[in-house]
Amino acid sequence: MKKSAIIESLEWRYATKKFDSAKKVSDEDFNEILEAGRLAPSSFGLQPWKFVVITDPVLRETLKSAAYGQAQVTDASHLVVLTVRTDVDAKYVRTYVEKIAAVRKMSVDALKGFEDMMLGTITRMTVPQVVDWSSRQAYLALGFMLETAALKKIDACPMEGFDAVQCDEILDLKKQNLHALALMTLGYRGEDASAGYAKVRFGADEVILKK
Amino acid sequence: MKKSAIIESLEWRYATKKFDSAKKVSDEDFNEILEAGRLAPSSFGLQPWKFVVITDPVLRETLKSAAYGQAQVTDASHLVVLTVRTDVDAKYVRTYVEKIAAVRKMSVDALKGFEDMMLGTITRMTVPQVVDWSSRQAYLALGFMLETAALKKIDACPMEGFDAVQCDEILDLKKQNLHALALMTLGYRGEDASAGYAKVRFGADEVILKK
Repeated sequence: MKKSAIIESLEWRYATKKFDSAKKVSDEDFNEILEAGRLAPSSFGLQPWKFVVITDPVLRETLKSAAYGQAQVTDASHLVVLTVRTDVDAKYVRTYVEKIAAVRKMSVDALKGFEDMMLGTITRMTVPQVVDWSSRQAYLALGFMLETAALKKIDACPMEGFDAVQCDEILDLKKQNLHALALMTLGYRGEDASAGYAKVRFGADEVILKK
Repeated sequence: MKKSAIIESLEWRYATKKFDSAKKVSDEDFNEILEAGRLAPSSFGLQPWKFVVITDPVLRETLKSAAYGQAQVTDASHLVVLTVRTDVDAKYVRTYVEKIAAVRKMSVDALKGFEDMMLGTITRMTVPQVVDWSSRQAYLALGFMLETAALKKIDACPMEGFDAVQCDEILDLKKQNLHALALMTLGYRGEDASAGYAKVRFGADEVILKK
């Protein structure tokens, strides 16, 4: 079977440890990656995320410390902090319903059934459970951004190896009802030994069950 | 700015409610979508997921009941249950380390530092926390599968609206250390009123923060 361009891109990508700090991702490409995240699906379409783009070099240095000094944080062309909204509650649901009503030119009342369904789902969960649920949605958006980067042959390193509490403090995220989940660095690979490592994946027979 | 083909595909996609049950996704396309999930990144590369492909029509009917009768479950061309591994523990980490050693032709001993790092991360969490963490990774893989489907103009409906406990029972997942997270139906849209609805997304100024 001939390999598709998509699969070739996904095999090409890897968690880039060493970026070429001289090579910058263009604004157009960077915006396209963020746009892919913005367009990602989520449960009920609630989009419980924000993407925090860090351009201030001092802030990037500070975040590097919170990421145990990992060089990608400052060497990559771009740095985005994936955050989850911690305020997915009745008020947020109403804001979302109003957004739907505005976009689809309908009344908020006509959306009452949908609003009640969302509220029912949320109230069956504790607040930490809602945040966990929202976090899963944010990772789906991260998936869209990472695949889009790979398709454009832009390197990325998604990172969980950082102190999230410290990161929240550095970026003052708590006050904005946000919590840092992952860092996404983007750029172009440098002389990176790990680029040559064979990708390790369980076989299709190990991860796909048929019933 | 000219829209890229990727963004056009992501705008084209929507959670398809009504599939054309006569139109089938080809084996080649279906396998490519699963392959995108298999290649998805995950924390430490642990791949804490399995994709359960349901072809038995009786099983699909039973799962439709567990999904409150939603027609997509049986009308879509293909049905995949996204599951998370609930057994990401020292034994599983060792299995993964052995896989790396085999693929990269190194000794397991040479990977001790990496193995210890993974074990350190896991032992700092409770078992439910490990499952939550693993679930986020599985959603990243779901993102890869959904974006890949969209790029190929294959419709999809990711669904959380089902009884996961019942689904686990129907598929006997618990015994296999798996738990159902989401259903992914794939196929081609039928005469679907919701296909015409404008996509509702918060604006880039609302989901992207710059610092």
